[in-house]
Amino acid sequence: MSNMSKERVLSGMRPTGKLHLGHYVGALQNWVKLQEQYDCFYFVADWHALTTNYADTSDIKASCIELIIDFLSAGLDPEKSTLFIQSHVPQHAELYLLLSMITPLGWLERVPTYKEQLENIKDKDLGMYGFLGYPALQTADIIIYKAKYVPVGQDQVPHLEISREIARRFHQFYPRKMHAGIAAPERDYVFPEPKPLLTPAAKLPGTDGRKMSKSYGNSILLSDPEAEIRAKLKTMVTDPARVRRTDPGNPDVCPVGDLHKIFSDAETMAKVNEGCRTAGIGCIQCKGWAADSIVRVLAPIQERRAKYEGNPKMVWDILEAGSAKARVAAEATMVEVREAMGMSHQYEAPNTSAAAESK
Amino acid sequence: MSNMSKERVLSGMRPTGKLHLGHYVGALQNWVKLQEQYDCFYFVADWHALTTNYADTSDIKASCIELIIDFLSAGLDPEKSTLFIQSHVPQHAELYLLLSMITPLGWLERVPTYKEQLENIKDKDLGMYGFLGYPALQTADIIIYKAKYVPVGQDQVPHLEISREIARRFHQFYPRKMHAGIAAPERDYVFPEPKPLLTPAAKLPGTDGRKMSKSYGNSILLSDPEAEIRAKLKTMVTDPARVRRTDPGNPDVCPVGDLHKIFSDAETMAKVNEGCRTAGIGCIQCKGWAADSIVRVLAPIQERRAKYEGNPKMVWDILEAGSAKARVAAEATMVEVREAMGMSHQYEAPNTSAAAESK
Ligand code: SF4
Ligand code: SF4
Repeated sequence: MSNMSKERVLSGMRPTGKLHLGHYVGALQNWVKLQEQYDCFYFVADWHALTTNYADTSDIKASCIELIIDFLSAGLDPEKSTLFIQSHVPQHAELYLLLSMITPLGWLERVPTYKEQLENIKDKDLGMYGFLGYPALQTADIIIYKAKYVPVGQDQVPHLEISREIARRFHQFYPRKMHAGIAAPERDYVFPEPKPLLTPAAKLPGTDGRKMSKSYGNSILLSDPEAEIRAKLKTMVTDPARVRRTDPGNPDVCPVGDLHKIFSDAETMAKVNEGCRTAGIGCIQCKGWAADSIVRVLAPIQERRAKYEGNPKMVWDILEAGSAKARVAAEATMVEVREAMGMSHQYEAPNTSAAAESK
Repeated sequence: MSNMSKERVLSGMRPTGKLHLGHYVGALQNWVKLQEQYDCFYFVADWHALTTNYADTSDIKASCIELIIDFLSAGLDPEKSTLFIQSHVPQHAELYLLLSMITPLGWLERVPTYKEQLENIKDKDLGMYGFLGYPALQTADIIIYKAKYVPVGQDQVPHLEISREIARRFHQFYPRKMHAGIAAPERDYVFPEPKPLLTPAAKLPGTDGRKMSKSYGNSILLSDPEAEIRAKLKTMVTDPARVRRTDPGNPDVCPVGDLHKIFSDAETMAKVNEGCRTAGIGCIQCKGWAADSIVRVLAPIQERRAKYEGNPKMVWDILEAGSAKARVAAEATMVEVREAMGMSHQYEAPNTSAAAESK
């Protein structure tokens, strides 16, 4: 099936450092699956990174390359998906500007994460105009590709709702002018309203038992070498009830048990369940098996990584080719946007089109 | 003197209807003079028009053409000045987005005209994100051309001050990276700080004696035919002390007297002064002379107008050529902007540039 007839999916990530298992299980793994069924656009959201990291951009370009290497290593295929970098598609900025004109300040101020982040992130001054406007930019990112679906976690659904509202508001002011005097039916609007494609949320603990997160320093990176993975696993917290080797444990309340559920096969899982609950195995042995499973899952990812890391120019060329494809798609939409707003770049003889329409 | 060696001047107007004598005396006449001495960029600010007119854009394209016809009629010469339309230079939107990331909300909220307009304009909902961000877009408009001067009225000076502040803030975060470890001197910053070029403010009353303004319905348009001008003058208010033909008057407190001071020659001015103060002339005669003077000033303007109105395609081509020139200038600046921010579109081999810098 050609991409033309597939429904379009869009998602992006900010370039804020190497990805970890949480990113893989919570997003990337799903993205890889989606590219078999959808026309997927995946992008590096470097402009979004500026909303919080504007004060120091010295690493931003290297981080973009890192992120695309993570994308490619995880199995995103530039033959199937369009992989691009946001700032190389200036049309996003144009649509952001146009949407900014119709987006009520109140909508932006009410986005839950806006106030949350303002309160929680104290080491940076987030009181910037662009930080407030983040949902307008995100909306532009999505609708400029007429994406039908956006893979999101449950916590991101409200973000997508404001995008749907902004798209509706655009249609309210700027319906397509197909036939003068005849209200355009929904299919004649420029944008589809993007729908969430819920990513099943797997519970992925970090080495300290809390949710795996870069800011907690409890992550296993997709790029960690085997020895590093094994060392990190060794420090991982376990079922606190299992104090001595002879105490039975419970994999259902053990972070290592959670890792097994995600990464281990049924046979290993059975051995863990049996051995832990009967004190038949030690935690060190169990963690070794978890490390084996993770190493097995990461092996093909790291194999691809080696290829791309050794050839940064090839990675850049993939980004450039994807960005060029994205620009074509984005510009095609912008032609429709400008037309709907009465601001097309085409010459129109005065009154001629109005006369033609009223005939 | 080629434009290369001239200092650059930038200004723009919103496409909100045909221009009147107030626009000519307060801005356009000065713009025409400036093009002899400076490398002038003058633009139709159609994106800015959206900040207040987003809800109905049906006239916007026609208004843009109208405005450029007014520019050309007033004497702006596309051989000397770059005349363009903002929305045809998408780089403005890209810089607006980047500046939005570093512009504190508080700066925007404190701009005097922001609260004023929110309070005064009640028939439109101005609580939009883009309306608040207007000074960031205006800053992008100016600095993307590295304009050294912006011709403004006294009331616009605070607007320019915020542009200067945003430019300084950009330099604070993103100085040019000329030599690693060596602070770049001021001349190595990307942008000059734009300075105001104060336009001498002439007092130009409308037919009701208040400041000439489209919203008061008291305007004489640059495009008004002679008969219309004479008819409008006839209705104009005069020195209220001069009730009867035999009462002496005072041109210094008469709106018609103000028009004479701007448009009439010394000889006519002398006749008015003498005749009014001695009741030697009637107000009808005096207004006839004022109309004569205005018609004389507008004659060459209307002659040019006839040429352009009869050839809208030529006007469009002038706009397109100017916009193409503007895009080249704007893109050259954006290359420097992206470079200073570490977000250039060029491939850089990993670490190579850093290694070269530290040598
Ligand atoms: S044996 Fe495994 S599942 Fe059981 S407590 Fe130890 S680490 Fe956790
Ligand atoms: S004569 Fe002229 S200047 Fe004097 S009051 Fe009449 S209109 Fe005004």
